Amino acid sequence: MVQSHPHDLRGKPIADAIIAEVRRETEMLAAAGWHPRLLSISIGDVEAAAVYIRNQKRQAERAGIAFEERNFPASITQAELEVAIRAMNADPRVTGIIIQRPAPAHIALKALQGAVHPMKDVEGMHPASIGNIVYNQLDLAPCTAAASVELLKATGLKLEGLEVVVVGHSEIVGKPIAFLLMSEGATVTVCHHMTRSVAIHARRADALFVAVGKARLITAEMVKPGAAVIDIGINVVKDAEGRESVIGDVDTDSVREVAAWITPVPGGVGPVTVAILLRNALTALKRQRTLYETAYREDVGR
Amino acid sequence: MVQSHPHDLRGKPIADAIIAEVRRETEMLAAAGWHPRLLSISIGDVEAAAVYIRNQKRQAERAGIAFEERNFPASITQAELEVAIRAMNADPRVTGIIIQRPAPAHIALKALQGAVHPMKDVEGMHPASIGNIVYNQLDLAPCTAAASVELLKATGLKLEGLEVVVVGHSEIVGKPIAFLLMSEGATVTVCHHMTRSVAIHARRADALFVAVGKARLITAEMVKPGAAVIDIGINVVKDAEGRESVIGDVDTDSVREVAAWITPVPGGVGPVTVAILLRNALTALKRQRTLYETAYREDVGR
Repeated sequence: MVQSHPHDLRGKPIADAIIAEVRRETEMLAAAGWHPRLLSISIGDVEAAAVYIRNQKRQAERAGIAFEERNFPASITQAELEVAIRAMNADPRVTGIIIQRPAPAHIALKALQGAVHPMKDVEGMHPASIGNIVYNQLDLAPCTAAASVELLKATGLKLEGLEVVVVGHSEIVGKPIAFLLMSEGATVTVCHHMTRSVAIHARRADALFVAVGKARLITAEMVKPGAAVIDIGINVVKDAEGRESVIGDVDTDSVREVAAWITPVPGGVGPVTVAILLRNALTALKRQRTLYETAYREDVGR
Repeated sequence: MVQSHPHDLRGKPIADAIIAEVRRETEMLAAAGWHPRLLSISIGDVEAAAVYIRNQKRQAERAGIAFEERNFPASITQAELEVAIRAMNADPRVTGIIIQRPAPAHIALKALQGAVHPMKDVEGMHPASIGNIVYNQLDLAPCTAAASVELLKATGLKLEGLEVVVVGHSEIVGKPIAFLLMSEGATVTVCHHMTRSVAIHARRADALFVAVGKARLITAEMVKPGAAVIDIGINVVKDAEGRESVIGDVDTDSVREVAAWITPVPGGVGPVTVAILLRNALTALKRQRTLYETAYREDVGR
């Protein structure tokens, strides 16, 4: 366990507040006949994801959201899965669809994600969902990216004009963080493995987001004093005795002495990511309700 | 007319090369029964856009693409226009749909753009088209953004690791330029009106893109010697005698002495933007052909 530290920006209190708010709204929606229900799709042996899925289910239930697991055999074809997803798209009892990772090598996850209807895309990964973020419609974003931004907001720093550097330009973490913060008025630079000097950029950042998957990539001398550091990396490392532990992309011990805020790993971005998934489910359900009500408000004779 | 200068990065030769390549491909497609045809929608009095539309038509015909204008009365409702667009989506003779600006105040242009099917979105403005760029599928991008990147490529500068600064974070110009260049390996910073010091960022840019609509915003002391400057601004200004002329966001006369490349206004980004629109039409037609052929290749008994 990471020990708590005065500079630590912990995820749990933020996640708890989001989940409580989601529960308040799901109860009102349920009273009006709108029951949120998530379907989790996993394929083949899910041992690697089991702990993660169990936690999603537990948090969903805390938020008043039903959570059902569907495990498909490893031998299923891509076409069969896509047909199954289309049936879920058309099922009024399904609010949102989650596609768990990892999947067998013959399954194209990106194409599966694209088969989920944008109205049921609670993971915020459909191209149309991503495009809507660019258009400043920020309420259904990829969960990890939105969670990272939520942690920054918890510092109370004013986002307008804030100098932000994102290290890592992945499609579902680095880039969406960049657009989300551009929409909030920050000045954003995105660095990656081809950047000439990540250190030069990182050192001028008021807020530094790191999502590359390299243990201890960011050290104290790469961080501006007083900065907020959001560590999105998840790396399994072994100590001298061969014991495994999970650490982030930031060398937390040294950076803690320089940064004003730092998210621990584990216990930082992770818990908030699950809370955002549930908030996305609520957003999806509200959109589905609006669509339904709009359709029935139209003149029958039209 | 802007006089040519050795540092000028002119659009016409680049546009001509793109149009010649598009024509080569449209001729092959037409021989196979796939005839490209663009529909241009304008609403109400189009005098402001008439020169622009006429030029699109002329360039389209040079590229072997039929171009048809549809002018709707200013009194048309949003709902009527959306029905008209849906009919065009379903018409196999329509390759792509262009929605001309300006439109009467009661028309929500963004919603119209969203009614165009992504397969026929030659302007690259549908949220799904924008999202696909984030997912590194770069072949159908907003025209002005793609044209600006095309001009940078014409300099021969290596994009991997290039320090790029984009001034302006609009949804269809600044942000898409940023993702397009991130996908090409550049390190990108996006500045805007809330940025503390645009000059500090601009001065470290190997390539500087400016799209804010402020005449002469960028002066020589804001530009790194040897940089490439892509000027996307279009501003109408009056001289002492009251004569109107069009200038960009860059103070071209002073910046020319510092930059290694600069796009003139007019004659820089503009001509390439039209060429990209036509290349997008070709891309759309090829996708429509693939979809059609895939559908008919499937087993009938399935």
